[in-house]
This record gives sequence, C-alpha cells and structure tokens, in this order.
Amino acid sequence: MHFTTETSSNGVIERSFTLGDVTGVLWSPASLPGRAPLVLMGHGGGLHKRAQGLVARAHHLVTTCGYIVAAIDAPGHGDRPRSAADNQSVSALLEARAAGGPIGRIVADYNASLAERAVPEWQAALDALQELPEIGPDGPVGYTGMTLASAIGLPLMAVEPRITAAVVGGVLVYDSLLEAAARITIPIQFLLPWDDEEIDRASGLALFDTFASTEKTLHANPGGHHQVPWFEAEDSVAFFARHFDARTRAVALGR
Amino acid sequence: MHFTTETSSNGVIERSFTLGDVTGVLWSPASLPGRAPLVLMGHGGGLHKRAQGLVARAHHLVTTCGYIVAAIDAPGHGDRPRSAADNQSVSALLEARAAGGPIGRIVADYNASLAERAVPEWQAALDALQELPEIGPDGPVGYTGMTLASAIGLPLMAVEPRITAAVVGGVLVYDSLLEAAARITIPIQFLLPWDDEEIDRASGLALFDTFASTEKTLHANPGGHHQVPWFEAEDSVAFFARHFDARTRAVALGR
Repeated sequence: MHFTTETSSNGVIERSFTLGDVTGVLWSPASLPGRAPLVLMGHGGGLHKRAQGLVARAHHLVTTCGYIVAAIDAPGHGDRPRSAADNQSVSALLEARAAGGPIGRIVADYNASLAERAVPEWQAALDALQELPEIGPDGPVGYTGMTLASAIGLPLMAVEPRITAAVVGGVLVYDSLLEAAARITIPIQFLLPWDDEEIDRASGLALFDTFASTEKTLHANPGGHHQVPWFEAEDSVAFFARHFDARTRAVALGR
Repeated sequence: MHFTTETSSNGVIERSFTLGDVTGVLWSPASLPGRAPLVLMGHGGGLHKRAQGLVARAHHLVTTCGYIVAAIDAPGHGDRPRSAADNQSVSALLEARAAGGPIGRIVADYNASLAERAVPEWQAALDALQELPEIGPDGPVGYTGMTLASAIGLPLMAVEPRITAAVVGGVLVYDSLLEAAARITIPIQFLLPWDDEEIDRASGLALFDTFASTEKTLHANPGGHHQVPWFEAEDSVAFFARHFDARTRAVALGR
C-alpha cells in the first residue's frame, strides 16, 4: 500500500493510496489517540471512490465517531481502466437505456463480473489496512454502500469474516446475490428505496428476507433508485456505533 | 386535570393524573429549564399506561432528550372499567384464541370501538397538557405506540394537527385504519415485525404504503408480534429529536 497524496480539512485527513492496480482513499481523524474502527465504503455503479455522497458520509463517520473510512475504485471505475469486456457492458447498458429497453440482465452480468474481481481486491486492501498502526488486526470492520457497492459487498461479506456489520441496499437482485445473502449472518441494515423505478420492490424485500442474520433491519424510504435521505447516513452511524462499541468493549474485557 | 401522586427516581418525575374518567401518567425531567417537547405514548392491547416496556421507553425519552411523556389508559384498560360490550369483545377474543380460530375480525372491531372513544380522550388530554407551563401551547408533540396504540393513534393523527411526528406499527390492518393513514401527512416511522404470527406481512407493507406522508420510513425487524428490538426505542428518540429540534429551531427563529 503506497500513500500518494495527503490533505487535511475540518479535522479529517485524506490520503490517496495505490495497492497494485487498485486506487483508493483513506479518511481518518486528524487527532487519533489510538486505534479506531474501520469502515469500508463502496461507490455506486458508474461512480468512483470520491463520489460526492460517499465523501460526505465518510467525513460524517470520521467527525462524529472518530472512525477510519476506506474507499477503493471498483474495476473500470474512477482512476482504473476499463477492460474490453467492461466497455462492451457499458455500451450495451447505455444503448438499452437510450432505447428504453430492459437493462436488468445487462446490469446483473456486469455487476457480477465486477464483484468477482473486486472481492479479492477488497480483501487485499483490508490486509494492508490492518497493517496500519491506527487500524490494527483486531479492530471492528464495517462495510457500507448501495447499488454496485452492495453487489460487491454481499459476496465479499459472504467470504470475509473480518467484516462484522454492514449497511447495504438498493441493489438489483439476481441469483448469485441471493446465494451470497443466504450465507451472511452479521448484523445488516438494509436500505430499500420504496419507489425504485429500476428495481422491483418485491425483489428487494425478498433479498432482505434471505439474509441469514439474526439481527437485520429493513429501512424503506419513499423515493427512487438514487434517493436515500441524509438521515439514513446518520442512522448508519448509530448502527455502526452500536455494534462497534459493543465489540470494542468485549475486546477490552478480553471476551 | 388533577394530579394525584408524584414520585421521583433517576432524574424522572412521575405524576399520576385523572381527567374526567381518564387515568393517566406524566413523566418529566426533574430539572427542566423551560418548556419541553411532549410525546404521547399509547399502550398495547390488554396492557395499560404503566406497562413495563412503555415505562422503559418513557424514561429513555425523558433522560436522553429532556422530553415530557404522557400516557393514558385506553377505555377498559388499566384503571378504567370495561363496558358490557368491551367484556363481550374480550371474551370473544379469548375464546377464539383458545379455540385456535381466526381473531382478526374481533380485534379489528374491538380496536375500532376503542379508538372511537380514545381519540377525543387523547385530544382532551392534549388540551389539558398544553395548559401546563412546562409544555405550553406551541411546542412540538409526538405520538408513539404499537398495536392498539397505533389503532388509536392513526385516527387520532388524522384529525389532530398538533401531532407533528409519530412512531407506530405492528397493528392489525382494516379499512378504517387505511382510511386514516391516507389522511396522515406528518413524518412517520413505521415499525413492522417481519415475522408477525398474527398480522399478515403484506397488510403491514400496504399500510406503510398508504401514509400520505412525504417523509415516512419503514423499519422491519425479524421477530413476532411483540418482539421489537430495544435499539428501535433508541432510534425513535433520534427520529423525534430530528423533527423536534428542527421545529424548535424554526419556532425560535420566528418561522
């Protein structure tokens, strides 16, 4: 993991990094007494690690909780080149959208392909992040992000036991995603845009139903695919704090 | 409104009151610099104004936010006598339950009858409460409570503009309740027990869909009819604080 740039504003230090071909960014509190919990934050389809909403939520987590937040570009997103197959998928998607045709199959295949590549990248990033002294190998790790970030996050959580709580949702549902959800047992906060024009409401409810987690909460709000009210970002903070603080206390007590 | 008893514990003053035939209780902060927002709290079917969970949530609202919480017994509940018709409803309900038969129609009719009487009682209670110097006529007012409390709360909110935010849910759905929901436009947090053995999941989703509110959030959690995780009580506090603080700021600014 190579840090390339560092800036600081409003009590938040922002560091860009590369890890092999992967480009990422790390936000952490300017003042950090010891180790802090880590939240992995994914971006939506077509966006990147510094998307406006992502940066706002990252800053909020850092400034209200003192957590550290990491984001990486998905393959073919942000600072990373698209493969020929990625270009074909994006072209097919844009053409179908312009023609008003169905896009579900195209998005499902593209998301699944991106997830297949992104899961080991997140795992390698987590390996490297846990070597940083301010994070360490034993601290709590969360994951958050909707749409493409959930298409990547669900298969990631299905195989990655270091992630112990997650906020996901607003994602197109297909079979391999349901299979991943059925293997997930950690606490989940699942955000469902109630009037999503791209994703069938019943399929979102079915995905929530599929998580094997004992603790899972569905949060549905009126609005379309990209409309999540800001108070859900605040609620995510409370969700992570509830689980991370319990975990931190348990670790401190040697349990 | 006549106060009958007053006790104090852990920074919370608890006062019993009567208002005509209605018996109630008021919890308020031991130290109150000025006026405080008011939350009206209903109890579930067969319970009363001092049900264990209700008292815990009332104390939580008082101690974390400094709000004032009022609860009244529904007709035929707690310290209030049942009418002959109420006794018939309760007997029919118990017999149907014991026989394993359907109870939906009985509960719907009984709830609707209780609501018809309870709505003007809550309005009279609110009139009296707003005459107290620590509450006043202009402060924010919330409503919270599930099952029977929602069967009463929805028709109450449909006719009572002083209530500006509410947390409800877990309620048997029937036509007049849907009609009330369709007239409600205030912010709603709607709690849905995901595995309710008594209430069909689809009917709960339909009720959420029916609220005319621009801001409404569905919170679904695994568990049966009476199983709402405690963190939802904490989340309700955040919900009320978000709306009441905005309202309080607006009033302070003369808006």
